[in-house]
Amino acid sequence: MRGIGPLFVDLYELTMAQAYFLEGYEKEAVFSTFVRKLPKNRNFLIACGLEDVLTFLENFKFTDNDIDFLHTLKVFKDDFLDYLKELKFTGDVYALKEGTVFFENEPVLEVKAPILQAQLLETYILNQIHIQTLLATKGARVCISSKEKVVVDFGSRRAHGSDAAIKAARAFYIAGMKATSNVLAGKIYNIPATGTMAHSYIQVHKSELSAFENFAAIYPETILLIDTYSIEKGIKNVVSLAKKLGDNFKIKAIRIDSGDIIEAVRVVRKILDREGLYNVKIFVSGGLDEYEIEKIVKLNAPIDGFGVGTKVIVSDDVPYLDIVYKLTEYNGEGKFKKSKGKQTVPFQKQVFRFIENGIYKEDLIGLYKEVLPGMPLIVKVMENGIRTDDGRESLEIIRKRCQEEIKKLPDELLSNTKSSKQYPVNYSPSLHKIIVDIKEGKY
Amino acid sequence: MRGIGPLFVDLYELTMAQAYFLEGYEKEAVFSTFVRKLPKNRNFLIACGLEDVLTFLENFKFTDNDIDFLHTLKVFKDDFLDYLKELKFTGDVYALKEGTVFFENEPVLEVKAPILQAQLLETYILNQIHIQTLLATKGARVCISSKEKVVVDFGSRRAHGSDAAIKAARAFYIAGMKATSNVLAGKIYNIPATGTMAHSYIQVHKSELSAFENFAAIYPETILLIDTYSIEKGIKNVVSLAKKLGDNFKIKAIRIDSGDIIEAVRVVRKILDREGLYNVKIFVSGGLDEYEIEKIVKLNAPIDGFGVGTKVIVSDDVPYLDIVYKLTEYNGEGKFKKSKGKQTVPFQKQVFRFIENGIYKEDLIGLYKEVLPGMPLIVKVMENGIRTDDGRESLEIIRKRCQEEIKKLPDELLSNTKSSKQYPVNYSPSLHKIIVDIKEGKY
Repeated sequence: MRGIGPLFVDLYELTMAQAYFLEGYEKEAVFSTFVRKLPKNRNFLIACGLEDVLTFLENFKFTDNDIDFLHTLKVFKDDFLDYLKELKFTGDVYALKEGTVFFENEPVLEVKAPILQAQLLETYILNQIHIQTLLATKGARVCISSKEKVVVDFGSRRAHGSDAAIKAARAFYIAGMKATSNVLAGKIYNIPATGTMAHSYIQVHKSELSAFENFAAIYPETILLIDTYSIEKGIKNVVSLAKKLGDNFKIKAIRIDSGDIIEAVRVVRKILDREGLYNVKIFVSGGLDEYEIEKIVKLNAPIDGFGVGTKVIVSDDVPYLDIVYKLTEYNGEGKFKKSKGKQTVPFQKQVFRFIENGIYKEDLIGLYKEVLPGMPLIVKVMENGIRTDDGRESLEIIRKRCQEEIKKLPDELLSNTKSSKQYPVNYSPSLHKIIVDIKEGKY
Repeated sequence: MRGIGPLFVDLYELTMAQAYFLEGYEKEAVFSTFVRKLPKNRNFLIACGLEDVLTFLENFKFTDNDIDFLHTLKVFKDDFLDYLKELKFTGDVYALKEGTVFFENEPVLEVKAPILQAQLLETYILNQIHIQTLLATKGARVCISSKEKVVVDFGSRRAHGSDAAIKAARAFYIAGMKATSNVLAGKIYNIPATGTMAHSYIQVHKSELSAFENFAAIYPETILLIDTYSIEKGIKNVVSLAKKLGDNFKIKAIRIDSGDIIEAVRVVRKILDREGLYNVKIFVSGGLDEYEIEKIVKLNAPIDGFGVGTKVIVSDDVPYLDIVYKLTEYNGEGKFKKSKGKQTVPFQKQVFRFIENGIYKEDLIGLYKEVLPGMPLIVKVMENGIRTDDGRESLEIIRKRCQEEIKKLPDELLSNTKSSKQYPVNYSPSLHKIIVDIKEGKY
């Protein structure tokens, strides 16, 4: 959420920060944010969340009230709290641009800053990059499965809290959805807001037909929800309304939110066509996700658009990513962990991408300063606490990038299940040598 | 998040509201919030989220800025926007007190207000009651499985956004956890904040032992993380530190965050005991949830406390509830839906609970004004837009209630999997008659 400050932090970051302060550890560290392993059914990820991280860093400031609260914990010394009070973020941030496709072990965001500062950012950076990347990826899968049909976000009510709802609307828009039902997200991000009527509206009217009639009088080009009592009844009332209004019937679409969708839309399409209502589109919602949409599209059901909600906004099949923020460098020295399953690779990094005939072919993870022939994906987005030009991107640019990125993915990665052929991500020769040296204990 | 206003709403609520306004629908409606079906592996739910809903209602006010934005959508007439600008919530709210156990189809919160107002609340009410109930329930399962051992929330970094992280800390505290790592949640709710050190702290020091030594000098009673390089090395360094410090060794516990936990803690406990460090407790974290904790506790592993994170805070096994906000009454008339799988039962309701020997035995869902022998659970928490005394509860009272509620659950419901014996929830004779009448089309 906007307005979240540096107190959104795990306490141990602050206890460590005080220890660095008292011990005099003040050199620059690099912390790397990456996903350790692509989860089930995921062949790629979409980078998202950078904008909020940069805004957080620009406004990084403990309030007097925050400091007073920290005093009450009786863990922090006055000297340290005085230091915190004046603290600003003065470091550099390197990141994939939002909307970029990436894979496991590839850094999505790296912070280079005095260790005390860099340490304090872990909780918020992970919290935001995690949820936004998770949802941009989920949204991209949904849009890919819909094969160019319209997809709209209806998920707010069952998102995990208000922040997730708002960030989801943005992530889904980047991923290719056309609009959101959430008005606040529409306002904050200038995303089209959409929506028509719920069952309750129909229910307070003396009949479904009178509800349709009244609603159409106010919103002539609306979408009518036809399954409050039964789909048969609902479509009959749409036809009655069309006859009654004649040329003034401008209804854009009908929506079905329950029951056996495929069977229902076929019947409804037939009735609409029989009545000459060719222009009335069919919009469906209710329990949809990429798997369901893929099925519907394959069966060639006459559906023009999808409203997606719960299963998409909670990323039901994969509700979290194994994303981490790890120390990889301190004072120019490489830092790494050898613990089983949780190994890390030292040093600041770059990702180099190789393209063949317009399709992504291979990535190499290298040292940041290495020069390799592939396209370097990580850019400096903040320098000495100030955004660079690369750190300022409009939502439309990011959205366009994401659409182009998806077009460059090898076909097999577009599957909703795990592709048998994983996208090749390798280490550059220099980084590979370091990894081997670590394994052999030479490092 | 605090500061969320009425623009956090699905657009269709506003288009419907304008229609009600223009058509003159201004009578009182009742909307009921309930979970249609308990999801897999859930035998009960814990009501949570009311406090935020009441705060939202008390502060329900469109800002000038909100109204200006709504103007730009070109959907709303000036009259309606002028009306919205002055709108306050003037209705009544009936709810289960937070921390109360409940079951499917039982109302957790009902709003009785002019329909325009009640309609506008759907998105926020569902968003908050959903995530908080989901997480209070998940947290309760974790605490039940831990059998009185300490459980602490470490999940913020992978919660779905900042709002979920903060609300989770509160929900988990209600559920019985002892503390949270999130400092902001600690500040907002006066929940104990906790945390010690991460691997990065160890890594910047020239050796693990010097890191332990320095940290213990600042925080004598801290918890040392022992698996940065290897658990064997880590515990050896703890023992060295103990020898070096002698009587000044006050370390409270060690923490293990990776590897085969059960094997590791047995070895570590043996070493600690051999060295006479009986008072040093063992704390574990990393990928834990109620299923894993149940396993660990059954094996009698020498563990004193658990830190839970990702899997708990995203409610990994069940990331959403089928929770809805449905019209059940308008102008005194019962309203209901007959659509397959989405039926609703009309009228404002009460839940009556029957107890036998201190254990919950059966619930009856009845009409609100019905008088039945069971204990009525739903109370009026807001009247004419003002909180009642029942709408003001301290977090400690709610937490205590939740602990007492869990003790009153039949044993079979405490299982982490679906109990073969479902808790009996039935309709009162009067409501049952209405349901039968609806089925027979007499209503």
